[in-house]
Amino acid sequence: MTQDVLGVAMVGAGFMGAAHSQAWRVAPAFFDLPLSPVRRVVVGRRADATEQAAQRWGWESSSTDWRSVLERDDVQLVDVCTPGDSHVEIAIAALEAGKHVLCEKPLANSVADAERMAEAARSAAAQGVFAMVGFSYRRMPAIGLAKRLVEQGRLGEIRQIRSVYLQDWLSDAEAPMTWRLEKHLAGSGALGDIGAHAIDLAQHLSGDSIASVSGMLTTFVHERPRLAEQRGLSGVAGTERGHVTVDDAALFTARFAGGPIGAFEATRFATGRKNALRVELSGSDGALAFDFEDPNVLQFYDARLPQETLGFQRIQATEPVHPWADAWWPVGHGLGYEHGFVNEVADLVRDIGEGRQPRPSFDDGLQVQRVLDAIERSAAAGSAWTSVDGADTEATTGRIGA
Amino acid sequence: MTQDVLGVAMVGAGFMGAAHSQAWRVAPAFFDLPLSPVRRVVVGRRADATEQAAQRWGWESSSTDWRSVLERDDVQLVDVCTPGDSHVEIAIAALEAGKHVLCEKPLANSVADAERMAEAARSAAAQGVFAMVGFSYRRMPAIGLAKRLVEQGRLGEIRQIRSVYLQDWLSDAEAPMTWRLEKHLAGSGALGDIGAHAIDLAQHLSGDSIASVSGMLTTFVHERPRLAEQRGLSGVAGTERGHVTVDDAALFTARFAGGPIGAFEATRFATGRKNALRVELSGSDGALAFDFEDPNVLQFYDARLPQETLGFQRIQATEPVHPWADAWWPVGHGLGYEHGFVNEVADLVRDIGEGRQPRPSFDDGLQVQRVLDAIERSAAAGSAWTSVDGADTEATTGRIGA
Amino acid sequence: MTQDVLGVAMVGAGFMGAAHSQAWRVAPAFFDLPLSPVRRVVVGRRADATEQAAQRWGWESSSTDWRSVLERDDVQLVDVCTPGDSHVEIAIAALEAGKHVLCEKPLANSVADAERMAEAARSAAAQGVFAMVGFSYRRMPAIGLAKRLVEQGRLGEIRQIRSVYLQDWLSDAEAPMTWRLEKHLAGSGALGDIGAHAIDLAQHLSGDSIASVSGMLTTFVHERPRLAEQRGLSGVAGTERGHVTVDDAALFTARFAGGPIGAFEATRFATGRKNALRVELSGSDGALAFDFEDPNVLQFYDARLPQETLGFQRIQATEPVHPWADAWWPVGHGLGYEHGFVNEVADLVRDIGEGRQPRPSFDDGLQVQRVLDAIERSAAAGSAWTSVDGADTEATTGRIGA
Amino acid sequence: MTQDVLGVAMVGAGFMGAAHSQAWRVAPAFFDLPLSPVRRVVVGRRADATEQAAQRWGWESSSTDWRSVLERDDVQLVDVCTPGDSHVEIAIAALEAGKHVLCEKPLANSVADAERMAEAARSAAAQGVFAMVGFSYRRMPAIGLAKRLVEQGRLGEIRQIRSVYLQDWLSDAEAPMTWRLEKHLAGSGALGDIGAHAIDLAQHLSGDSIASVSGMLTTFVHERPRLAEQRGLSGVAGTERGHVTVDDAALFTARFAGGPIGAFEATRFATGRKNALRVELSGSDGALAFDFEDPNVLQFYDARLPQETLGFQRIQATEPVHPWADAWWPVGHGLGYEHGFVNEVADLVRDIGEGRQPRPSFDDGLQVQRVLDAIERSAAAGSAWTSVDGADTEATTGRIGA
Repeated sequence: MTQDVLGVAMVGAGFMGAAHSQAWRVAPAFFDLPLSPVRRVVVGRRADATEQAAQRWGWESSSTDWRSVLERDDVQLVDVCTPGDSHVEIAIAALEAGKHVLCEKPLANSVADAERMAEAARSAAAQGVFAMVGFSYRRMPAIGLAKRLVEQGRLGEIRQIRSVYLQDWLSDAEAPMTWRLEKHLAGSGALGDIGAHAIDLAQHLSGDSIASVSGMLTTFVHERPRLAEQRGLSGVAGTERGHVTVDDAALFTARFAGGPIGAFEATRFATGRKNALRVELSGSDGALAFDFEDPNVLQFYDARLPQETLGFQRIQATEPVHPWADAWWPVGHGLGYEHGFVNEVADLVRDIGEGRQPRPSFDDGLQVQRVLDAIERSAAAGSAWTSVDGADTEATTGRIGA
Repeated sequence: MTQDVLGVAMVGAGFMGAAHSQAWRVAPAFFDLPLSPVRRVVVGRRADATEQAAQRWGWESSSTDWRSVLERDDVQLVDVCTPGDSHVEIAIAALEAGKHVLCEKPLANSVADAERMAEAARSAAAQGVFAMVGFSYRRMPAIGLAKRLVEQGRLGEIRQIRSVYLQDWLSDAEAPMTWRLEKHLAGSGALGDIGAHAIDLAQHLSGDSIASVSGMLTTFVHERPRLAEQRGLSGVAGTERGHVTVDDAALFTARFAGGPIGAFEATRFATGRKNALRVELSGSDGALAFDFEDPNVLQFYDARLPQETLGFQRIQATEPVHPWADAWWPVGHGLGYEHGFVNEVADLVRDIGEGRQPRPSFDDGLQVQRVLDAIERSAAAGSAWTSVDGADTEATTGRIGA
Repeated sequence: MTQDVLGVAMVGAGFMGAAHSQAWRVAPAFFDLPLSPVRRVVVGRRADATEQAAQRWGWESSSTDWRSVLERDDVQLVDVCTPGDSHVEIAIAALEAGKHVLCEKPLANSVADAERMAEAARSAAAQGVFAMVGFSYRRMPAIGLAKRLVEQGRLGEIRQIRSVYLQDWLSDAEAPMTWRLEKHLAGSGALGDIGAHAIDLAQHLSGDSIASVSGMLTTFVHERPRLAEQRGLSGVAGTERGHVTVDDAALFTARFAGGPIGAFEATRFATGRKNALRVELSGSDGALAFDFEDPNVLQFYDARLPQETLGFQRIQATEPVHPWADAWWPVGHGLGYEHGFVNEVADLVRDIGEGRQPRPSFDDGLQVQRVLDAIERSAAAGSAWTSVDGADTEATTGRIGA
Repeated sequence: MTQDVLGVAMVGAGFMGAAHSQAWRVAPAFFDLPLSPVRRVVVGRRADATEQAAQRWGWESSSTDWRSVLERDDVQLVDVCTPGDSHVEIAIAALEAGKHVLCEKPLANSVADAERMAEAARSAAAQGVFAMVGFSYRRMPAIGLAKRLVEQGRLGEIRQIRSVYLQDWLSDAEAPMTWRLEKHLAGSGALGDIGAHAIDLAQHLSGDSIASVSGMLTTFVHERPRLAEQRGLSGVAGTERGHVTVDDAALFTARFAGGPIGAFEATRFATGRKNALRVELSGSDGALAFDFEDPNVLQFYDARLPQETLGFQRIQATEPVHPWADAWWPVGHGLGYEHGFVNEVADLVRDIGEGRQPRPSFDDGLQVQRVLDAIERSAAAGSAWTSVDGADTEATTGRIGA
C-alpha cells in the first residue's frame, strides 16, 4: 500500500503510556486513516523498564533520552504522557522540531507554561504542524452525541451545568503517596488531575467558556506512606512517609461567558464512587446527563416532546448513527475506558492527514489551565469571585441577574 | 376509650394544608399514639374555600380568623401551613396561648423572626408546650435509616456532604408566578423553599452544623405571567405579568463545624428533574446516598466489608427493622411523599404525650435560617466565605486544611 | 350537603383489611365522588380483635357475623378481604342481597366458584348492583399511563409480554407458615397470590387474553414452623411445624388470543427481590416496562422517534396529565403501595354513582382464574400446552407461526 | 526473547473475525503469556476482501483455502469464526492436523456434529492438542466474579436461575435477512445464536447442568428483504425478499440436575433492548444478577449480612482483586464487549502453554448443543417436558417437588 506512515514517539511509560499505546495499536484496525501510525520509540526514565514496556506494548525501540528522539527523521509525532511538570519543555521542543504533538492533560502545571505551549502550538500550526491536548473523554460516543445534540440546539438556552468527577482511591488514609500527590510534579491534586476533565467537558459540551469562579480546596489527609510499588493509579505502601502537598478535593462554582452557571466538584474522597465523571446540562428545552460509571449511555430529556411521556431517555450510544460507534461493535455491545483514546488518536491522525487543527487544541488546554488557576486564586482569597482572565479577584456580587 | 384528645387547628389551606390534613387523618390508624388527634378547625383567608377544604379534608369546622382559634379550649395544637411571612406572628401567639405548634419550614423569612420564634419556643417548652418545625423528609424511612447508620458510626469520619434539591417547574419561562416567587411572601426562592430541606438533611444526617458558607444566587427569568388558577405547586397562567423577586437557583459550598465540607444546590430549573432531593455523605469507612426520586431506597457503601464484593447496597427501607416501616405495609410495598408527614405527626404526638421536646425544634429551624441568611450575605459579597454566626464575611482562605 | 351516602361493610380484618380501610378513609379527601362512602362495619372472626381493628381503622362498628351485615339497610357495598376460600359464599350472598361488591383477588379458589361468582355478578348488574375484583395495581398511575399508551396504539403490534412477580419472603426455609401456604385456604401459592397480578396486568395492559399456557409449579421447602404471631405478610415462628401444600414458584409461558407470546414467573424465593412486579410489552413500534420496586415510573421506548436519541424514557407518572395523578401531590412527589387501593375505590364509587360496570369485573377475575387453572393442569401434564378454555391439554406444537 | 511463538490461523472474516483479531492483537500487551501469539493467516471466501481484512486486522497473510492452512508448520492454532454449519468439518480437520482449536459458539448446528467434535477434542487432548469453544461472556470480570462467589458457596443452595438474552434488531419487520436467519447456515435463530449464551452462562455460573426442558419457538416475521450490504449484525436491505427459516424468539423453562429451576428467553424482538444478556441466580443465602447493558457491574445480595442494611450490592468489577481486572485499567475505568474475547484468548494461551484443558471445552459446548436440541424437540412436542439426554419427551409431571 502506498499509505504514508506517521512515526510516533511516546514519552512516558506509566499508566497513560499503556492507554496511549493501546490507542496507537488499535486505531488503524478500526478506522480508515489517511496515515499509517507506526510505534517507533517509547521514552522512559529507566532503560530496562522502558525496554520492557516497548516490547509489551509493541514499540519498535526504547530510549531514555527524549531529546534524541526529536532528531529522528522517522518520527513525525510526539505523544507526551509524562507528569505535568515536564509537558512544557517536551511539547515545545517537539513542536519546534517540527513534530506534531499529542499532550496529556492538564496541559501544564501553570498558566505561564500553558501560554508558552499554546503560543508554540499556534506558531507550529502556521507551518502545518499540529498540537492536541488529550481530554480523551470527549471521544466517548455518548459525549460525542451530547455535543451533537447541543449543536443542534436541542437544549434551547443552557442555564445550568453540573460537572463533577468523583473517585475514592484516597479515602483510605493509609493509601500510599504517588507523584499525583506532590505539587511540584502534579501541579495540583484532584483539581488538576480530574477536575480538569470536568472543566473541559463542561466547556466542550456547552460550547461556552468559564468566565469567573469561586472555589475552595481541601486536603483531608496530610501525611501518607510513600509508594513502594506502583499499581494502577495507586500501589503498595512502603514504610517511609511523605507529605501530601496537593488538594484532595475541590469544590467550585462558575459563571460561563454566555450565561449559564456551573457547579463543580473534583474529589478522590467520594467513598464508593470509583470513576464517576458526571456532567449534566439543563436548558430551556432539554437536558443531558452523562455518568462515566455507565459510559455507553447518554441521558437526554427532550422537553419539546409531548408532556404525557416526558422523561429522560436512556440512549445507548452504540448505534451506527452515533459518533465513532460505526467503527466498533454491533448495537448494545459497549465500549470501555480505552476507546476514548482510540477514537482520539483516530481523529488526530485524520486531522493531521487533512491538514486541519485538531481539537482540543493547546488553546483549549490553556483555557482549562486558566480556569484551574482562577480556582486556586479564588480559594486563596476566601472563595471570592475571581475572573478567569484577570489577575485579581472580582468585587462583583454573587447575586447574578438580580 | 379513655385516650386523651389532642385538638388540632390548622392555619393555611393550600398544598401544605392538604398534606398535613392527610397526616392528621392517617396517623392514628397506623400508629399507637398516646393522644388522639382531632381535626377541630382549619383556618384560611376566604370563608367559602376554607369551608370546602374543611369538608373535603375532614375538619370539624372552618374559620378565617386564626386569632380566634387560639382562644378555643378544645384546641391544644396549632399547625402552621401558611407562607413564611406569617409564621412568626401565628406561631408565637399560639405558643403564648399555650398551644403546641407544628410550623412548616422554613421557620421564618428572616433570622430575626426565627430568633424570636426560637426564643418563644424555649419559653413555652419550660411550660411543657412544644414546638416543632416541619422538615418532613427527615421522616422518610430511608432517611431515618441513614441517620441511624451515621449514629452507629458506620461512616467513620464524615468528610464530604453533597446535598441538592433539583426541580424543574420554572424551567418553562412562561410558567406562571405564585406566591413562592415573591420575596415579601416567600422570603427567598429556591434557596429557602427547597434549599432549606437540603440544608436540614445535611445537618440532621451528619449530626453536624454548617459553620460558614460561600454562595451564589441566580434569577434566570425575571418576569412571568401572573397565576390565574393554582394547581399543585404551579397553576394556569393569566394575562397579567409579574416580577420575580426571588432566586431561581442557589449554589453554595459549606464548611461544617466538625470538619466536613459540603456542596449544595437548590434549583427550580433542573430540566427533567422533578423532585430530586439528593443527599450523599462520604466518610472514611462508608458512604450513604439518598434520592427522593427513588424515595424508599437508601444506598449504603460499607467500606469495612471485604473488598471483593464492595459496592453500594440498594436497601429498600421497608423492612420491619427500619424506622417507621413496621407501622406500614409488607416489605417492598413502598411509601410515598405524604408518609413523611404522617410519620412526623405520629412522632410529634408521641413526644407531646410523653412531655419530650420534638425534633426538629425551632432551634434547629433557626440554625437552618442562619445558614440561609449567611448564603444570602455571601452572595451579596461576591461569594466571600461568610460565617453563619457572625454578621460579616470572613477574611479567611478558601484553602482548608492546607 | 346533599351527597348520598354509600355505606360500606368490610369482611376481613387482616393486611388487606388495613389497605382497604385506608382506601375508604382517604379516597373522599382526594377525589370528587358522587357518593360519600361511610365505613359502617368491619367483620372479623374474633370479636375483640375486630373491634380493635374497627377503632383503629375508623369503622363505626364491628361484627363477627358477615351474614347479619347483609341485612343492614345502611350498608350498600360489601368489601370482601378474606382468604380466597370464602369469597364465593360471601360475594354471592352480598350480590343477592343487593349489595355492590368489591372482592379481593384472586376471585376464588376454583374456576367453578369463579364461574358462579361471575354469573351472580352478571345477574346483579342487570339490577344495577355491581361487582369488582381488586387488582389494585391496575390503578398505579404508571400502569394507568401504560394502558393509555397501548390504547393509543403507541406500541404497534404487540409481540411479546414479560410479566413476573418476584418476592423473597419464603427464601429463608425457617420463615413460618401462614394461611397463604395452605392449599385449602389459599387455593394455590405464589401462582394464585402474586401470579394472578402478573396475569391480570399482562391481559389488562395488552387488551388481549391468554388462550393457552405451558407451566410448571415447584415447592422448594415442604415443611415450616407454624406461625405464632402474624406480622405483615409473614410473622413470628412458633415451635409446631406445618406442611406447605402450595407452590413456592410458578413458571409459565403463554399464547395470547391476538398473537403475542408471554413469559411469566411468580415466586416467593427470588432472594433480594422484595415486591418486584415487573411487566414489559414489546411491540413493533415501541415498548413499555414497569417495575413495582420503582412504582411511580413507567419506562417507554417509542421506536417512532428519530434513531439518534432512541432510548427508554423514564417517565415519572406524577404529572397532572397522568391518570389519577392530578388528585395527588405535585410533580415528582410520588405515591406508594396503598394509593392503588385509594384510586381503585375512587373509581369504583364513581362507577357505582354513574351506574356503570366497574373494571376489573368478575368476568375479568374469572378469566384470570381460568388461566391459573390451565397452568395447574399444564403443570400436572408435563407442561403440555393447555387451552385456557378447554378441559384437555393441547396436541399442538410449541413451534408457533412456523 | 526466547518466548515460543503460537502461530494462529483464523477462518472467517466477518464480525466475529474482527472481535477475534482484536483479541489476538491486544492480549499479549496486557497479559504475561507463556507463548507469543502471531497472527499468521486469515482465511475467507473472497480473496480480495480477505486480503483487505488481513491488512486491516494485522494478519501476516490471507487465504481462501482453509485446508491448505492446516498444512502450515508455522500455524499451531486454528480459530474458527465461520457460521455454524462449517464448524464440524474445520474443527475436526484442524484437531486431526494437530492444531489447537478455538471455535466460536454454538459448537455446531446439530447434536450429532457436536458429538463428533467433542469426540475429536477428547482424542486430541490425549495428545496435548486442545479445543475450546468461545463463550466469551464467561470472561467478563463481573461474570468471573459471580462464578467465584458461587464457588465460595456464597449463595447457599441455588434454587432459581433466570437467564435471558434480549435484542431488538429484528423488531423492524423490514430489517434485512442475514445468514443468521437461514436455518441451513445458522442452525437456529435466536435460540442458537444468543440463547446458547444464556444457557452457557446459567450452567457455568451454577456449576450445574440442565437435565430437562420445556420450550416454545416463535417466528414473528416470515419474509424479509435480502441483505444488500452487511453492517454490524444487520445491514442494508436490497429489493429481493427471502424467507426466514429460524426462530425469532425462544422461551423455555428448565430443571437442572442438581435441583434448581430455570426460566429462559432468547429474542431479537425485545424492542428497546439492545444486548441485554441478563442472568440472575437466587439461592438460600444470596443472589447474583448481571446485565450486559451494564457490563462492568455485578449485583450481589448477601443474605448473611445483617438485615438492617440488606440490599443488592452494585459491585464494579474493576478492582485488582477481580478476575482479569488487574491486567487492565484503574478502578472504575471499565471494559467493553471486546475484552471478553481478549481475556478468553489470554486464558486459552496460558492453558495451552501449561498443557491444561481450557474451558469451556467442546464437551461443555456439546452440553449446550444438547440443551438447544431438547428445546427444539420439546417445542415440536407441544412444549412437553423433554430430557436433555434422551431422544423422547418425558411423561413426567410439571409439578416438581410436590
